[in-house]
Amino acid sequence: MKVSIIGATGYTGAELLRLLGGHPEADIRYITSESSAGKSIAEVYPHLQAVQEAKLVSMEALDEVAADSDVLFIALPHGHAMAVGKRLEKTDVKIIDLGADYRFKDTAIYEAWYKVPHTHKDAKAVYGLTEWYREDIRGAKIVGNAGCYTTASIMALAPLVKKGLVELDSLVVDAKSGVSGAGRSLSLNSHFGEMYENLKAYNVGGHRHTPEIEQALGGLAKTSLVLSFTPHLIPMARGILSTCYARLKNGVEAAAVDAAYEEAYAQEYFVRLLGRGGYPATKAVRGSNFCDLGWHVDLRTRRVVALSAIDNLVKGAAGQAVQNMNVLFNLPEKTGLELSPVYP
Amino acid sequence: MKVSIIGATGYTGAELLRLLGGHPEADIRYITSESSAGKSIAEVYPHLQAVQEAKLVSMEALDEVAADSDVLFIALPHGHAMAVGKRLEKTDVKIIDLGADYRFKDTAIYEAWYKVPHTHKDAKAVYGLTEWYREDIRGAKIVGNAGCYTTASIMALAPLVKKGLVELDSLVVDAKSGVSGAGRSLSLNSHFGEMYENLKAYNVGGHRHTPEIEQALGGLAKTSLVLSFTPHLIPMARGILSTCYARLKNGVEAAAVDAAYEEAYAQEYFVRLLGRGGYPATKAVRGSNFCDLGWHVDLRTRRVVALSAIDNLVKGAAGQAVQNMNVLFNLPEKTGLELSPVYP
Amino acid sequence: MKVSIIGATGYTGAELLRLLGGHPEADIRYITSESSAGKSIAEVYPHLQAVQEAKLVSMEALDEVAADSDVLFIALPHGHAMAVGKRLEKTDVKIIDLGADYRFKDTAIYEAWYKVPHTHKDAKAVYGLTEWYREDIRGAKIVGNAGCYTTASIMALAPLVKKGLVELDSLVVDAKSGVSGAGRSLSLNSHFGEMYENLKAYNVGGHRHTPEIEQALGGLAKTSLVLSFTPHLIPMARGILSTCYARLKNGVEAAAVDAAYEEAYAQEYFVRLLGRGGYPATKAVRGSNFCDLGWHVDLRTRRVVALSAIDNLVKGAAGQAVQNMNVLFNLPEKTGLELSPVYP
Amino acid sequence: MKVSIIGATGYTGAELLRLLGGHPEADIRYITSESSAGKSIAEVYPHLQAVQEAKLVSMEALDEVAADSDVLFIALPHGHAMAVGKRLEKTDVKIIDLGADYRFKDTAIYEAWYKVPHTHKDAKAVYGLTEWYREDIRGAKIVGNAGCYTTASIMALAPLVKKGLVELDSLVVDAKSGVSGAGRSLSLNSHFGEMYENLKAYNVGGHRHTPEIEQALGGLAKTSLVLSFTPHLIPMARGILSTCYARLKNGVEAAAVDAAYEEAYAQEYFVRLLGRGGYPATKAVRGSNFCDLGWHVDLRTRRVVALSAIDNLVKGAAGQAVQNMNVLFNLPEKTGLELSPVYP
Repeated sequence: MKVSIIGATGYTGAELLRLLGGHPEADIRYITSESSAGKSIAEVYPHLQAVQEAKLVSMEALDEVAADSDVLFIALPHGHAMAVGKRLEKTDVKIIDLGADYRFKDTAIYEAWYKVPHTHKDAKAVYGLTEWYREDIRGAKIVGNAGCYTTASIMALAPLVKKGLVELDSLVVDAKSGVSGAGRSLSLNSHFGEMYENLKAYNVGGHRHTPEIEQALGGLAKTSLVLSFTPHLIPMARGILSTCYARLKNGVEAAAVDAAYEEAYAQEYFVRLLGRGGYPATKAVRGSNFCDLGWHVDLRTRRVVALSAIDNLVKGAAGQAVQNMNVLFNLPEKTGLELSPVYP
Repeated sequence: MKVSIIGATGYTGAELLRLLGGHPEADIRYITSESSAGKSIAEVYPHLQAVQEAKLVSMEALDEVAADSDVLFIALPHGHAMAVGKRLEKTDVKIIDLGADYRFKDTAIYEAWYKVPHTHKDAKAVYGLTEWYREDIRGAKIVGNAGCYTTASIMALAPLVKKGLVELDSLVVDAKSGVSGAGRSLSLNSHFGEMYENLKAYNVGGHRHTPEIEQALGGLAKTSLVLSFTPHLIPMARGILSTCYARLKNGVEAAAVDAAYEEAYAQEYFVRLLGRGGYPATKAVRGSNFCDLGWHVDLRTRRVVALSAIDNLVKGAAGQAVQNMNVLFNLPEKTGLELSPVYP
Repeated sequence: MKVSIIGATGYTGAELLRLLGGHPEADIRYITSESSAGKSIAEVYPHLQAVQEAKLVSMEALDEVAADSDVLFIALPHGHAMAVGKRLEKTDVKIIDLGADYRFKDTAIYEAWYKVPHTHKDAKAVYGLTEWYREDIRGAKIVGNAGCYTTASIMALAPLVKKGLVELDSLVVDAKSGVSGAGRSLSLNSHFGEMYENLKAYNVGGHRHTPEIEQALGGLAKTSLVLSFTPHLIPMARGILSTCYARLKNGVEAAAVDAAYEEAYAQEYFVRLLGRGGYPATKAVRGSNFCDLGWHVDLRTRRVVALSAIDNLVKGAAGQAVQNMNVLFNLPEKTGLELSPVYP
Repeated sequence: MKVSIIGATGYTGAELLRLLGGHPEADIRYITSESSAGKSIAEVYPHLQAVQEAKLVSMEALDEVAADSDVLFIALPHGHAMAVGKRLEKTDVKIIDLGADYRFKDTAIYEAWYKVPHTHKDAKAVYGLTEWYREDIRGAKIVGNAGCYTTASIMALAPLVKKGLVELDSLVVDAKSGVSGAGRSLSLNSHFGEMYENLKAYNVGGHRHTPEIEQALGGLAKTSLVLSFTPHLIPMARGILSTCYARLKNGVEAAAVDAAYEEAYAQEYFVRLLGRGGYPATKAVRGSNFCDLGWHVDLRTRRVVALSAIDNLVKGAAGQAVQNMNVLFNLPEKTGLELSPVYP
């Protein structure tokens, strides 16, 4: 399988190189960067020396790249993948976009939250959260790989919503992420002195992963819904924990909650159920494609508190992208992804 | 003013020494420790060399200690302060307990959550969250200094609850703390390799600060209430951020929320209002007695999201204890506490 | 190949499980623990759930374990491997000891530094620093896997010493390690609150890795030597950087230094030469078996400063142990170890 | 005492504001910034809200600033203070420069290492490492405040060199610093994702603090000398540890080493002698002006290993600047600097 990466020099691109480099069926053909074209990737990321030393090329020669690839991963900032998708619409290459351009069924929602016009509204794109949309992904041309916060949050809440166990107007998602989620671009918020031993929320009520979670959960609930989503920056590099709150409907008992998680995930290799009373920890999934889930039923408040932990760069980005590639090409989903977490 | 500290070798005790050592009116007389009696405090905490080198004594000679003190700070694990308070009931010494023993009006709640019998039910104790209970504290014999999570959480929600702006059954507090909150006792949860680049929740639905927050907010609302409280461990030493969610009552607008915070805190030196849209950060209060507050009104979900940041060892423990001492002794509240945060 | 691990619940044991779990030829048979016998390893290390869930057994049934294993990894505190080695002397099982018991040719040195009698002085043991002792290892019964600091330090200095380029009485090794090097046992030095944003030296002049480095370099120099070795604790979990100082002999020029490194390592997959002027970084090797090397020639002081970075749990322990296993069993040395560093 | 700060928006400037804000004799008049002129300092550093809210002005009106100040602190990048010093030569204002422009007696050394012409060669400037140059500082017009690495390193080695106990060609300084030393300017080296759980050396053989250490030690030895100095970046915000190696001269015994430290520092409040065998830790001085010292005599190698820890922003910059101000104005040296370290 010939694979290429459009935009390989962000943290997501680098993580794709780590994972695809260890994938037995993947043969990396082209990796592109506009800012570093002509350099080897190991000049940009010295940790890749001896692991992956391909030369970065410009994406100007996109048609050539596509012609020599079975699948393209796009790891560009949002707004840039649409042009690529449209240009390659008639080719055979499969596209997995790690940005937001192809995540929304209703492109008006994309336009409202991302403030850019959508230029590829009729794309044959599916949403790439593998465990919930596997059948759609199988035959797709374009996969809009799910976001990091969204993957963690949907995984935690979907079983409850699908089974109709919780009040839909009660959903609150309090999410925490390591700083790598903000990427490799320099900013005061990612400056070591500012974020070390620091902790803060950002974008309350306005983070763009909100409508993505709402779309997925609304789809399962078969009704539109809104929820509160609050992201936080945590002084660590990798990892997301989503703490999700929902009011149980009258009469729903803890056993029904347990059953919902079991039914949804008992067969899923990448979902590790820590059970009722379980406490996922980001370090326990670091470097791996696992999503760890635990849930708590608080009868005093009639709320369920669902917790999920992922590595934002793996299950929240590059790992899930490879998982989707495996689905697209009918490989066993675990191929290249049976990575032990790196602990401690 | 002669001050003594019962239980000086925990992190809270050490922080009291830092703050009282810089307090112009405080003269430290006795510091006690059962495990390290006979040592100097600088042997236990080398950072205190040349700052504070008093010898630790056993609390066996408690009557002597009390006789030579105007105020005693108790920094013992819960369950141990009651005996001290009872034994000194008839003396003139004032007591500020940094544990939970004297925080509850209804000692049955204490007994239910802390699983120990309360042995000093008729104590003349007041709750020590200064900004909200200042007048009670002024003449008190015993102050039950507010907890760390509770201080952050009550400060954020109290103005909304007091003004009746939010639905009382909608309160969710998602709190995050640095690891020093777990103290200096060794445990796997505080082991460096386990918590570095790690993040997790604990005690969901069962943390003992829950009823303390409920007592305070219920008191302001003049009705009993329950809420969801979830604590998290964050890979940093100091700092707490509380992210608080509440549904606005019908008809309540953002301006009323702003007014509630202004009315509650505009005159408070230690409360820094970052305003609507503000983002408190734990590092911005590190080492100081400030509580930073910001709030967000999300009209899509009709929720207000209130954020507060404190240093758990200062405003969440030793700093507030000194603030309470200043109130007890009619000193200006800022005395000894005009500390700039240490940044970066 | 049937492999077993004696003492699987320390950080080194857990890392062996991560690496052997991904090794295509290794079949894990027994894992032992005295304190956790009867539990599954995933109860002790939740990150291993779904990755490795074998049950821990006691090492009492050592003969059975050995009879069903081709190779035993011993990850016990020093002093305990000798009994195992002696008991299994007549069996066919190969032994790779990750502790210090089998590292010294002259067991009197072991006894002097480790303060325990050596009870297996006539063992057929070889020193397990693969790149330098590969040929010895090939036919060995017992491998005394090199220590973490020692691996980093020897790799940096060996080419200079072997080629006779530096004054042997001028060697200074200033080494820095993440806290995981101190293991999972609880101690104040590994307590999060104490080591976060902290940095200090320990065991100056007395660290037990000193004679191990001296043995190896003295062997290459064909003379005994002493050097200064200073270990430091760094507030991170994984990684070692050794900064090594040596005075160039008169007349030696930079080109000779370059040539020494090239000659020693140009063909070594796990050694990445960053060249003269290069700066190894621990994060660039995290999770991998690489040793990154850079060197600097300072003509003002006539010193060469050699820098090496490894992951203390991989090339400094479990990774090198697997590399040695590959040598013992005539597998390509990279088997199971072609792991990309995990970055960021 | 009227004080102003030229260049107040770097980390050093912010630390000056923290310290001068708590100084009982200092009245802050002007704080300047070219990039943020017109803003309040609390907009640039939110942690200073309610602590220090002065408005930043441009330094264009330097003459006015100087006319209304008794002392100016200059916290500009090197190369910019000389113009200020020259322009104010005839005024009465005292100048404390926290950069390198006024640190060198021989300005040719400055020019060689800093690559800029020195434009104020005849300045009446003294070197500002208080404990060693106190008498010179007392009557000075301009103080060239000592650098961070240099303060730590000179404090550790000066007693040995002054007493002639060590071989001058054997000096090696291996220094480690938190990332705040690199300032608030954005760079990949200070990017959170790059430096978290990372560790590396930089500028081997070429760091500009090298000649500053050599100047001071050479002055004490009354001969010129060169030494090896290697700085490292450590994943923490604040703190420097210098590990210094020197070969004892023949016949020198441990007692002479002890005596040298005692003689040099027994009367110094800000130097805490941890004694022979002591281990300074950066966290034990965090936020304070202390320099902690320990030393080790290794008879195997005939080397003394001297260790010193400081907070790079306090004793390594702003704290020592205030200490120098106290000397300049005949205040007790501790004034405003009796700060307890902030621990944990």
